[in-house]
Amino acid sequence: MITLNDAKRVITAAEKKAQEIGQPMNIAVADAGGNLVAHVRMDEAWIGSIDISIKKAYTSRAFDVATKDLAPHCQSGGQFFGIHASNDGRIMIFAGGIPLKRNGKIVGAIGVSGGSGEQDHAVAEAGAAAF
Amino acid sequence: MITLNDAKRVITAAEKKAQEIGQPMNIAVADAGGNLVAHVRMDEAWIGSIDISIKKAYTSRAFDVATKDLAPHCQSGGQFFGIHASNDGRIMIFAGGIPLKRNGKIVGAIGVSGGSGEQDHAVAEAGAAAF
Amino acid sequence: MITLNDAKRVITAAEKKAQEIGQPMNIAVADAGGNLVAHVRMDEAWIGSIDISIKKAYTSRAFDVATKDLAPHCQSGGQFFGIHASNDGRIMIFAGGIPLKRNGKIVGAIGVSGGSGEQDHAVAEAGAAAF
Amino acid sequence: MITLNDAKRVITAAEKKAQEIGQPMNIAVADAGGNLVAHVRMDEAWIGSIDISIKKAYTSRAFDVATKDLAPHCQSGGQFFGIHASNDGRIMIFAGGIPLKRNGKIVGAIGVSGGSGEQDHAVAEAGAAAF
Repeated sequence: MITLNDAKRVITAAEKKAQEIGQPMNIAVADAGGNLVAHVRMDEAWIGSIDISIKKAYTSRAFDVATKDLAPHCQSGGQFFGIHASNDGRIMIFAGGIPLKRNGKIVGAIGVSGGSGEQDHAVAEAGAAAF
Repeated sequence: MITLNDAKRVITAAEKKAQEIGQPMNIAVADAGGNLVAHVRMDEAWIGSIDISIKKAYTSRAFDVATKDLAPHCQSGGQFFGIHASNDGRIMIFAGGIPLKRNGKIVGAIGVSGGSGEQDHAVAEAGAAAF
Repeated sequence: MITLNDAKRVITAAEKKAQEIGQPMNIAVADAGGNLVAHVRMDEAWIGSIDISIKKAYTSRAFDVATKDLAPHCQSGGQFFGIHASNDGRIMIFAGGIPLKRNGKIVGAIGVSGGSGEQDHAVAEAGAAAF
Repeated sequence: MITLNDAKRVITAAEKKAQEIGQPMNIAVADAGGNLVAHVRMDEAWIGSIDISIKKAYTSRAFDVATKDLAPHCQSGGQFFGIHASNDGRIMIFAGGIPLKRNGKIVGAIGVSGGSGEQDHAVAEAGAAAF
């Protein structure tokens, strides 16, 4: 179970990291069912990234994987190429989504979007570390 | 302009009201562009209301009206009947969305979903009052 | 938690009821996150009801309610009229979806479609009783 | 014609294979019309694969081909590149879907998702062999 307090703690840690690297972000947390628990868009963060952050969280839980690690398999020629067309467009196949684990079990995910793939992943990691 | 801090203050006030009436809610804040600034799902709130809260905020800003006041015109026989099929399904025509005003000008909206229409509207009002 | 074995037991009981009343049905079971666990289409059941059964299960869990009891509020003039346009079209506002409870807590839902509203609800009840 | 009993037999065989290789799967069977007959999500299988398994079954019947064999033509530069955008997003262009034949005629398909492309195809083959 992920409570709203859990999600807020994760998001606060991610926001702090985003401020440190100077890149405003959209940050979302999903629960075990892939459903949104909370989302924030930091001031000046891209509006196109609202949807992406929410979908990265979904994707990360949907396949129990960091979206960064899913990405290589989803390029043209890869074993999962075309997966982005599934799940009614909810699958994001680039860095920024990370599963949230409790006692070794995945119970949700964080999704971050607003900068480069590397930045998004770093901010997601900071959030996940606070879980 | 609605900052993330504004949105958090609005949401905190709405959460407090939801706790008082004992009904967990989904609460969303949209900016002047109708785009999501922040969202929370309180523990035990309906997962079907995630989407509705976000769309009530959009609708309220999209037509600069409380969704409660839009509703009567949208029923079968009303002048806007069918409007819920527009905007790619983003229009919610029942109570719970309220515009957020600054110096008399609408700059965003709050959307609440998780209880009866009356409850949703009351929680949205408590949030809007904190803006 | 709903296991696949749970879902199969629920579906078997629902199939039995459908056979008794002589109306082939689509039967779906969703988990706590509203995600599909299992689905069957009985021989000769409507193909248009595949989607409906799955969405009734989702709806019933999404709002923790029997869709039969949601329906009256969703008609023109009701407090939730327009809710069928939310959740990307996944909300079914007629009889046939029933929450599945364990120890008083809702952990999923069954959705049935293939006959009259009364028949769908009766088959869903038979399935839920086996949970 | 594929009966529900046929579909259950196919699914049971596929489940057995998935257990043998230790990878929980989503397994779906579609009929000659490409419409779902039955689906199961094994415990711990990815929720993102529910949709994919159903769509692999659809795709396999839609083009009367194993999705594994469709894949090479659908990569960037291939003759069918872009096909995943057709059919309202129902086309899955990676391994795991196999046609079901009776007397040399394709009458449906099985779709499997939950592991690597190789695993998905192997489980689908085990299911198809039981038809």
